Amino acid sequence: MAKLVECIPNFSVSKEQDPAVFQGLVDVAEGVKGCTLLDVQSDGSHNRCVFTMVGSPKSIEEVSFLLCKKATETIDMTKHVGQHPRMGATDVIPFVPTMDMTVEECIEISKNVAQRISNELKVPTFLYEDSATSPNRTNLAKIRKGQFEEMGDKIKQEEWTPDYGGTSIHPTAGVTAVGARMPLVAFNVNLDTDDLSIADKIAKQIRGSSGGFKYCKAIGIMLDDRNIAQVSMNMVNYEGTPLYYAFEMIKMLANRYGVNIIGSEVVGLVPAKALIDCADHYLKIENFDCNKQVMEYHLVK
Amino acid sequence: MAKLVECIPNFSVSKEQDPAVFQGLVDVAEGVKGCTLLDVQSDGSHNRCVFTMVGSPKSIEEVSFLLCKKATETIDMTKHVGQHPRMGATDVIPFVPTMDMTVEECIEISKNVAQRISNELKVPTFLYEDSATSPNRTNLAKIRKGQFEEMGDKIKQEEWTPDYGGTSIHPTAGVTAVGARMPLVAFNVNLDTDDLSIADKIAKQIRGSSGGFKYCKAIGIMLDDRNIAQVSMNMVNYEGTPLYYAFEMIKMLANRYGVNIIGSEVVGLVPAKALIDCADHYLKIENFDCNKQVMEYHLVK
Repeated sequence: MAKLVECIPNFSVSKEQDPAVFQGLVDVAEGVKGCTLLDVQSDGSHNRCVFTMVGSPKSIEEVSFLLCKKATETIDMTKHVGQHPRMGATDVIPFVPTMDMTVEECIEISKNVAQRISNELKVPTFLYEDSATSPNRTNLAKIRKGQFEEMGDKIKQEEWTPDYGGTSIHPTAGVTAVGARMPLVAFNVNLDTDDLSIADKIAKQIRGSSGGFKYCKAIGIMLDDRNIAQVSMNMVNYEGTPLYYAFEMIKMLANRYGVNIIGSEVVGLVPAKALIDCADHYLKIENFDCNKQVMEYHLVK
Repeated sequence: MAKLVECIPNFSVSKEQDPAVFQGLVDVAEGVKGCTLLDVQSDGSHNRCVFTMVGSPKSIEEVSFLLCKKATETIDMTKHVGQHPRMGATDVIPFVPTMDMTVEECIEISKNVAQRISNELKVPTFLYEDSATSPNRTNLAKIRKGQFEEMGDKIKQEEWTPDYGGTSIHPTAGVTAVGARMPLVAFNVNLDTDDLSIADKIAKQIRGSSGGFKYCKAIGIMLDDRNIAQVSMNMVNYEGTPLYYAFEMIKMLANRYGVNIIGSEVVGLVPAKALIDCADHYLKIENFDCNKQVMEYHLVK
């Protein structure tokens, strides 16, 4: 079975505002053997684009560096305007384990790439999320606070010395955050009630920040078109907090408020294993080896 | 997403008894672009080998014909001895939908290949399983009865006229069966009882042949090392009869006999969708599109 890593770098340029620079990045992404460009999102008002790539660890390490190199050469942050917060030409590079990979292996990749970017491109780098070297660097928003314009002063403070590359920003490319994280699964559970306060209470009970499941973020929202309340979740580590933990806990709590689950939603892409782990639980499968027994895993190249 | 077909042709030769002829087939299987040889099983006493290949519809159609051609040229059935029943140099070629394919599309492929084999190689062919042109041709064992030695006479009977290629067998390659079928999932459910008769009764109740689920074959067996009874099943069409139908029905029936399910087993390879459909059921997911939303499906080439 192939080892696969996902990489979702964010660049401070858009197809809408600077098509030539944008296309230069696409060309780099498509030019490295062993990885696939799955998706590109560009937003003109954010003046930002997001690439989704999957490939072997080596090819992903290479393409993420080459993209950062291209962005450093072609994007000038002193002239960048956009609604989305940003601190560098390459703003952030997350690595996500996709197949037969651990987060630890992705942390290793993130450190290699972060070091290479600072050495060869002279862009200081921060390690964030699971790669962070201190708790206050886990959250990207905290690192990025002040944005490109204030970053020159910020990284001279001892608390914000970059992990690699010294205390001076790159004059036109700023600084970059690099890190590893588990894939995120957007999972929502619908209740047979129009009482939003019930969804709010359940969301508060199940989310990690208030004592619930560590890797679950949750809020209550109304689905106005159906007039029902929903517990809307981001499952940020489906191995640590499986989807069926959230589902069964919501079922139990809803029952306490006299309501029922009428359905759920998985939004966007989901790794097969996040769902197969649920089948494994409900069917009580003994000794199932996802990597060996799921046919599609043998077909990915 | 890539369209993928699995093909599992069986040939009347073994690595153990005729390594050169066996290797000739392996070389053909590995020489067609767009398909992957996932597995080769060879049995000396059966004097038979089984190839498992996956690829695009076009490449699988091509490689299955080329393999049959090679087998026709290099295997002499008049000299073949082995314990496994067989009727041709290429004994049987099943096509199985694997990704973004229907059984109907596989039936189409089976007919193309069966026709080409009879036209170009002068080997008469039978369509079997879901491709069968009459109910008594569904079961391969019925078609193969009498084996190579009696096939010359058998296919002169009106009832056993081959679907393609006339009423004379190929003198050294015999006849071949070609057909489409759904993938088979070996799914066993363990009970907390040492009473085999309970597993037997449940097996009889859930299997299609005695009025249970159409696409479920089941028997009761003892797991002697654990001293528990098991309902051992072949799920021959997991879309028609999903795994959770069998699991929930066994749970209900076991309860009636005062026993419980303590676990289950999935043996060997399983298509991701057979398990994801179970997660979809238990989590009550609304409008889930496996082909679009499962990340790995986008990575198969």
